Amino acid sequence: MIEALSPEAEQRVRDSFLRQGFMRKLGIEFRSIGKGACELAVAFDESMTQQHGFFHAGVTTTLADNAAGYAAYSVMPANSTVLTTEFKMNLLAPARGPELIARAEVIKPGRTLVIVRADVYSNADDEETHVATMLATAMCLKDKEDKPAQ
Amino acid sequence: MIEALSPEAEQRVRDSFLRQGFMRKLGIEFRSIGKGACELAVAFDESMTQQHGFFHAGVTTTLADNAAGYAAYSVMPANSTVLTTEFKMNLLAPARGPELIARAEVIKPGRTLVIVRADVYSNADDEETHVATMLATAMCLKDKEDKPAQ
Amino acid sequence: MIEALSPEAEQRVRDSFLRQGFMRKLGIEFRSIGKGACELAVAFDESMTQQHGFFHAGVTTTLADNAAGYAAYSVMPANSTVLTTEFKMNLLAPARGPELIARAEVIKPGRTLVIVRADVYSNADDEETHVATMLATAMCLKDKEDKPAQ
Amino acid sequence: MIEALSPEAEQRVRDSFLRQGFMRKLGIEFRSIGKGACELAVAFDESMTQQHGFFHAGVTTTLADNAAGYAAYSVMPANSTVLTTEFKMNLLAPARGPELIARAEVIKPGRTLVIVRADVYSNADDEETHVATMLATAMCLKDKEDKPAQ
Repeated sequence: MIEALSPEAEQRVRDSFLRQGFMRKLGIEFRSIGKGACELAVAFDESMTQQHGFFHAGVTTTLADNAAGYAAYSVMPANSTVLTTEFKMNLLAPARGPELIARAEVIKPGRTLVIVRADVYSNADDEETHVATMLATAMCLKDKEDKPAQ
Repeated sequence: MIEALSPEAEQRVRDSFLRQGFMRKLGIEFRSIGKGACELAVAFDESMTQQHGFFHAGVTTTLADNAAGYAAYSVMPANSTVLTTEFKMNLLAPARGPELIARAEVIKPGRTLVIVRADVYSNADDEETHVATMLATAMCLKDKEDKPAQ
Repeated sequence: MIEALSPEAEQRVRDSFLRQGFMRKLGIEFRSIGKGACELAVAFDESMTQQHGFFHAGVTTTLADNAAGYAAYSVMPANSTVLTTEFKMNLLAPARGPELIARAEVIKPGRTLVIVRADVYSNADDEETHVATMLATAMCLKDKEDKPAQ
Repeated sequence: MIEALSPEAEQRVRDSFLRQGFMRKLGIEFRSIGKGACELAVAFDESMTQQHGFFHAGVTTTLADNAAGYAAYSVMPANSTVLTTEFKMNLLAPARGPELIARAEVIKPGRTLVIVRADVYSNADDEETHVATMLATAMCLKDKEDKPAQ
């Protein structure tokens, strides 16, 4: 069971997501957020493909990285911002449409570094195929705003 | 000095790049290809950003992954296709505009697995800042077409 | 539930383990093997430490890498050998004694590449602490002997 | 050209190395240290092998991890200690004897996180073969002693 966030904490994560122009460009959907967990999804489109016609690894990675980053942000204090410092991605199977879903879960909520696992599934007729797995490190920057500097 | 590819080999790589819808969507530019080396670039746009207004890690990774993949493909035989099986990315500094450049270089050209390093630089007034480094494994699939199955 | 291996397959994995001089040097214990899963353990000793007196990351990694490799080998055919091609390790907490346990599980049993996750726990009074997590790729080499060439 | 450390800074790194029991157990030799760079070496022995008779990946990784960690430590302030938080290793070729050499170089000397690349070479008759490459993140813990807590 994933613990719910306070309305303020959930709003803080959703606002951050909305500030990312790249989420809009890819049409990535914010599905859910809880304490240390986040789910995002994206629909297939010809403009998302690599040369064999599957989702490009760049899409799969963007989805996983963002799910990981917001799962991490959900366990960080209010006056902070989040940065991904590194991640490792294993691509397990062709990422087919019509939909990709990324689910991220915090493994270790350190004060400065938060370690997160994210898995990406291709969803066709409610049958999910595991297409990628990521291990990521997010960093908490305290007393920094989660938006562009003025 | 990077060794030039034969015109046929260069065309094979460029054709593969052109089949990727995601390259067009992001406006990624194919700068150069040689034996075991590839350079790609992308221009800044509001639609490419994360929440602080920098290039999203998904863009940086897409650029590095594709440069790595095509550097690897350049050392593979004609009747083959390339897949990235895994990569690891370290984000070193904010990826600012106006331009990102990825340069990839094959470290180990194995028959089945090709190991590649890719570095991403933010380019402002011809001053480059190292913003990310990737270590990737590409796999050569022989007797497979580098395009969608019919 | 982990599926048991045939006696021949289990023997093949155990024989490989016994050929590794480094396992004896570190006193690593082979706990269990099943289809796609392996557990190894090692006892603390002053000769295993880093500068703060915890298990050295080299010990933790050796344990995880070997558990991952044998979990992968357990799903490979009889006339093959296994090589780790790459792994990524996140160190989550100090690796204290008296015992470390690594548990590996195959995520994707490909024909050529097998992707494995391994987790390492520090075990004190039957209380386990998660100290590290690994994501690894093992490669199956067919028609190759799993021992030194003559 | 690698910049030399002050005698005090060099001593601090060498003392840390000497506190690691695992370095003695493996007979790892401290070759050199400079600002952001470190070289370590180890001699082949039957007790260091995997099942084909090559150096075990655990030895190669220990060597690379420690070279990376001390390259990172060399750019950290005096009243600090170093921890590896994560690394990624690609194994490129069989690690044969008689000697392995690891050379690490800091890519990004951040205040909290230091990113390091380490390469491992097998050295036979002064002919070096590139056997592995690592990308690692080390963390600087300020006002913490680089030795066991009392």
